[in-house]
Amino acid sequence: MRIGETILLDRPAYLQSAGAIVGQKEKEGPLGPYFAHVALNERFGTATFEQAESKMQAAALQLALDKIGRSSDEVDLILAGDLLNQCVASAYGMRAAGRPFLGLYGACSTMAESALLASLLVSTGVTDLTAAVTSSHFSGAERQFRQPLEYGGQRPPSAQWTVTAAGCLLFGKTPAPLRVSAVRAGRIVDAGVRDMTNMGACMAPAAAATLAGFFRDTQTAPSDYSRIATGDLGFIGADLLTELLAREGYRLGEEYRDCGKMIFDREVQDVHSGGSGCGCSAAVLSCVLLPELAKTPKGKLLFCATGALMSTLTSQQGESIPGICHLVCFERGE
Amino acid sequence: MRIGETILLDRPAYLQSAGAIVGQKEKEGPLGPYFAHVALNERFGTATFEQAESKMQAAALQLALDKIGRSSDEVDLILAGDLLNQCVASAYGMRAAGRPFLGLYGACSTMAESALLASLLVSTGVTDLTAAVTSSHFSGAERQFRQPLEYGGQRPPSAQWTVTAAGCLLFGKTPAPLRVSAVRAGRIVDAGVRDMTNMGACMAPAAAATLAGFFRDTQTAPSDYSRIATGDLGFIGADLLTELLAREGYRLGEEYRDCGKMIFDREVQDVHSGGSGCGCSAAVLSCVLLPELAKTPKGKLLFCATGALMSTLTSQQGESIPGICHLVCFERGE
Repeated sequence: MRIGETILLDRPAYLQSAGAIVGQKEKEGPLGPYFAHVALNERFGTATFEQAESKMQAAALQLALDKIGRSSDEVDLILAGDLLNQCVASAYGMRAAGRPFLGLYGACSTMAESALLASLLVSTGVTDLTAAVTSSHFSGAERQFRQPLEYGGQRPPSAQWTVTAAGCLLFGKTPAPLRVSAVRAGRIVDAGVRDMTNMGACMAPAAAATLAGFFRDTQTAPSDYSRIATGDLGFIGADLLTELLAREGYRLGEEYRDCGKMIFDREVQDVHSGGSGCGCSAAVLSCVLLPELAKTPKGKLLFCATGALMSTLTSQQGESIPGICHLVCFERGE
Repeated sequence: MRIGETILLDRPAYLQSAGAIVGQKEKEGPLGPYFAHVALNERFGTATFEQAESKMQAAALQLALDKIGRSSDEVDLILAGDLLNQCVASAYGMRAAGRPFLGLYGACSTMAESALLASLLVSTGVTDLTAAVTSSHFSGAERQFRQPLEYGGQRPPSAQWTVTAAGCLLFGKTPAPLRVSAVRAGRIVDAGVRDMTNMGACMAPAAAATLAGFFRDTQTAPSDYSRIATGDLGFIGADLLTELLAREGYRLGEEYRDCGKMIFDREVQDVHSGGSGCGCSAAVLSCVLLPELAKTPKGKLLFCATGALMSTLTSQQGESIPGICHLVCFERGE
């Protein structure tokens, strides 16, 4: 059933399992104890950063499958995307799985975009076991979007640090404690920000639009949720979102977190405005937010991953940077 | 209902309309009379090739909406993707529409991927008016994937020419003559081809896998369809597909076409192995194949767009080039 742009799932899509693997820096951060699987160096036993990212995606899928004792042969559909040009981390990472594959591009919003589509397809009976997969890699992202690492360019205080991580959620019809109850695909929102080193400011207006629209459609407020988590707005973006939502009459309180703020220690780890990248919210969702929800009777989690829909070329051409935010509402029963 | 990896739509998703706009070279080709809307130069009234491509996407959406007297406000969801890094033709092209947006990446298979997801979401009642949009642009693709145009690099005989075009299909619940009756998301198939200038060879094995799997699941043969069209295998890839399918016991006959072979005159237009790019199959489907189907009582069209899931970086790193092929079956009633 749709209310405005919010889609309420008539039949639940159950979370079957979640798997994630992170890099060394992420393991050393405040969420380290939650991350059981770590790629001990940035090449992860491969020749290149990009191959490492693909291998991490494959590892995340395998971890999620192992938890429920299923094999990749049993996966009906894989929905995957990443930040690399032509989404090659996903194409090469999922190649060996040999299952029907649909590539997505939602920048850092991809964990929510893939979970949204996967849960809709499961809920409507189109597919059963369906994988939502994404990843990012600091070194691969730096050389593609910014500068060669060897150059050692200075990063402004508003910059975020791309997380090295991959995550996979598996959805299916088999009843399980956690389910998706509602989703909302975001609109492209462009507030005119042109600063490639301030992604939080580019994405916060999109997060505000998606959350305010969702609260309006469902006649709920932030305090109705046990947890609200944005993808990777970072310190600047999270403050902006709080301010923008307050103007719309919605006050974010103690329930609010941002994955980009959670994953690193801002002072000790030199990450300026926090973490970013598709892998950031994927790992925090898989290893922290969903396990937390599983321990919260009647808990409701609004997971809102955000993305900046630009390329280095469009920024060089003077374009502003539009943002997008997709929302997935996870619930636990009694 | 699913049979193997083929999904039969229990309730039909109706094609509401289709719109496309092509470039000057495409208008001058053998399909010129079918293309009513043309961007008369490669900048299309903008400052850059990339902005031109975005503007062509917006124009294709508007053309499709105009045909049925609807406005973009009435679109429930836009599914769009393209070949540019980070899919920016779609993000900037669909920005002004202000509707829920999900970005896709399927390389040149994007018209089939977006139509597949759009028709599933409509068929299952999740959304009503849903847009599937894609595009490609010769000059934008050349400078991103190959060389600066000014360099005038020689193209080998196996190379294809990226089509400048954008297309949009609108699906919905309102009964209409054409409907989607089945879809099949392809697997990533890698035959080990490493030649970036022979995309047909990279993609043909994926097309063979998708078509053979579909025929097997549905217990049909090529002759059961009034038209079978692959996306843009070109001359080399189409021959390979014919050979690969014959080995599986399926003989493609008079019903078979390839959009990459159809769109240009190979001899006069100097395009070597034919056309390619997401816009190729999008424009041929919208302006030639679907109007043809509309005139064919009991007609059945298998539309199989193919994509090569590589980047310049993965090829520089020595990776082989995997292909993918998604299938959408369109039908006309009595």
